[in-house]
Amino acid sequence: MTTYSLLILPGDGIGPEVMAEVRKVIGWFQNNRGLSFEVSEDLVGGAAYDKYGKPLADETMAKAQAVDAVLLGAVGGPKYDNLDFSVKPERGLLRLRKEMDLFANLRPAQCFDALADFSSLKREVVAGLDILIVRELTSGVYFGEPRGISEDNTPGNEGGRVGVNTQRYTSGEIRRVARSAFELARKRGNRVCSMEKANVMESGILWREEVQWVHDNEYPDVELSHMYADNGAMQLVRNPRQFDVIVTDNLFGDILSDAAAMLTGSLGMLPSASLGAPMENGRPKALYEPVHGSAPDIAGQGKANPIACILSFAMCLRYSFGLGAEADLLEKAVEKVLADGVRTGDLMGAEGGKPVSTAEMGDHIVAAL
Amino acid sequence: MTTYSLLILPGDGIGPEVMAEVRKVIGWFQNNRGLSFEVSEDLVGGAAYDKYGKPLADETMAKAQAVDAVLLGAVGGPKYDNLDFSVKPERGLLRLRKEMDLFANLRPAQCFDALADFSSLKREVVAGLDILIVRELTSGVYFGEPRGISEDNTPGNEGGRVGVNTQRYTSGEIRRVARSAFELARKRGNRVCSMEKANVMESGILWREEVQWVHDNEYPDVELSHMYADNGAMQLVRNPRQFDVIVTDNLFGDILSDAAAMLTGSLGMLPSASLGAPMENGRPKALYEPVHGSAPDIAGQGKANPIACILSFAMCLRYSFGLGAEADLLEKAVEKVLADGVRTGDLMGAEGGKPVSTAEMGDHIVAAL
Ligand SMILES: CC(C)[C@H](C(=O)O)[C@@H](O)C(=O)O
Ligand SMILES: CC(C)[C@H](C(=O)O)[C@@H](O)C(=O)O
Repeated sequence: MTTYSLLILPGDGIGPEVMAEVRKVIGWFQNNRGLSFEVSEDLVGGAAYDKYGKPLADETMAKAQAVDAVLLGAVGGPKYDNLDFSVKPERGLLRLRKEMDLFANLRPAQCFDALADFSSLKREVVAGLDILIVRELTSGVYFGEPRGISEDNTPGNEGGRVGVNTQRYTSGEIRRVARSAFELARKRGNRVCSMEKANVMESGILWREEVQWVHDNEYPDVELSHMYADNGAMQLVRNPRQFDVIVTDNLFGDILSDAAAMLTGSLGMLPSASLGAPMENGRPKALYEPVHGSAPDIAGQGKANPIACILSFAMCLRYSFGLGAEADLLEKAVEKVLADGVRTGDLMGAEGGKPVSTAEMGDHIVAAL
Repeated sequence: MTTYSLLILPGDGIGPEVMAEVRKVIGWFQNNRGLSFEVSEDLVGGAAYDKYGKPLADETMAKAQAVDAVLLGAVGGPKYDNLDFSVKPERGLLRLRKEMDLFANLRPAQCFDALADFSSLKREVVAGLDILIVRELTSGVYFGEPRGISEDNTPGNEGGRVGVNTQRYTSGEIRRVARSAFELARKRGNRVCSMEKANVMESGILWREEVQWVHDNEYPDVELSHMYADNGAMQLVRNPRQFDVIVTDNLFGDILSDAAAMLTGSLGMLPSASLGAPMENGRPKALYEPVHGSAPDIAGQGKANPIACILSFAMCLRYSFGLGAEADLLEKAVEKVLADGVRTGDLMGAEGGKPVSTAEMGDHIVAAL
């Protein structure tokens, strides 16, 4: 029997609470579906800083490299806001992404029918929304060199400083994430829209040309369009359902996927997967995490919605282990619980529902399985 | 009597049509308000490329530097999509911004009551929306060096290329646009929210620190908050009315202001002002342009809505010439025409209205004056 190794990094804020519910789900699959998981747990973000003085210990990094998949909760919190840049909680997450080379970040923005009224957008604009943003995650301005803050005395800035970051993309980096997007599109609506600012940035021109190259040479059957990222932001607000798969760079992906997530009105519901190249066993390097953050304001109160984290585990079943049927089963269980009116605080709307805690939501989902 | 010198650059697509209506408005103020304007006209963007082989001739640039204010229509169109980067229509606009040193781009996102139902957002989320985005316009990744595309053979990219752009901000550049934002906030809701990605970019850390410095030393009376730009995109979608003035960099400003514009549902209504340092006569260097683009699909058909361009002229009256009363008068005239149900195609909704052409809309506004 195959044993799947998982490293759980609950992180900060509501991370540990929502991850506890994922553990219940993992337990259910072990007991009822004959799956075997080997689960270890460690620290990341502020929690790791508190213990090790840095947001990701080297031993944790080594463990992440060795397992089949990493499940991450969330990082950050006001307690760590004034830490030096190099040890901020986010650096732990960014180190994982970079060293595991998780270049393709999959962020589905789906509007759950039972929750469509939560959106600030009109129901008729978002009902049934199902788009997938594929964000490049290991390059661009997040990682480009040179970077930093230094003294600067250029005219108009005497005695001042200068802050520099570098947006840098190679053909290879663009092509591999484009391939991910085209592959995923083939299993969905077969359409990819690539977004950049080729009208003002040369790195955007290269992005557009390389995505087009991959299309023309390898995926001519998929429909490809290009859009400037500012127009992309507009179109996401105006008519998000025009999109199927969107592929974009690290920084635009950060902004646009958050906007898209908020369109759905279901932020507490949205999972993500970050995938790298296949390992020796054929599985991609992978990290799964909810789109929402650490929500320090409600941490430790049993109010958090664990569904985004649970659905991230469903993505893990699908993308890391090829267990599509099990992933479907878990997603269906979540849908059933929602249809039954079970609601954490963030999902309580005018029409009421059965208010539950984080742990109760987890229990309901396990029961629905 | 003071004579105000204006350079009109209609540009491409619907630019010339909407600018023709601004001319009517200028004429009205000359004839009925005793104002004296000296108006010249020239080419920019694709129109300039067609005639001069570049998107802004040096003589045009010199004229722009000499006048009190520049009024611009729009640039770009499919005809020019495959031009070399250096002569794309956008480069003309970017050259104007850079050489006139128009560092503060003011983009009001206002939801007009008569048009609130056009928004894809729920009426209760956007009705009465009135935020002002102050976008830095002459620096950041739009202009930073090094930049460009070159050959690259780093491992994984053999035989490939690399595209580079540089995000670069000095203390002086950040402080001056922060001052603009604080000054404007004092005349409005007295609140500024600054947006960056200080959690991943050092240039964002410098941005945050310098904005805070200007606040603490010069504008302690204004309420200041900081937000990561991805969260900013979310919050704009979730509850845009929480903001008064937003100050952000060139690239984030591009994306976020377009998202904000679309929230209002009134893209054809939104003006902008780009302001620089005061000239000898005390007036700031200034360029005014609608937020919408050149809309090539409807160009030349008399369908375009001239209101954004006309309201840009109202901003010109206010910010360049200190003619607040005249600006108010013009804005009131626009409101009256809308309240009367006069509508260009983009404003025609379920509740009907009186359909008019671009020129008729201009005539109605002049009549309402
Ligand atoms: C926490 C932060 C570093 C991160 C990012 O900017 O990538 C987050 O916003 C995300 O989108 O996963
Ligand atoms: C036309 C383009 C160069 C420009 C920009 O990116 O600044 C436009 O999108 C804008 O926002 O004014």
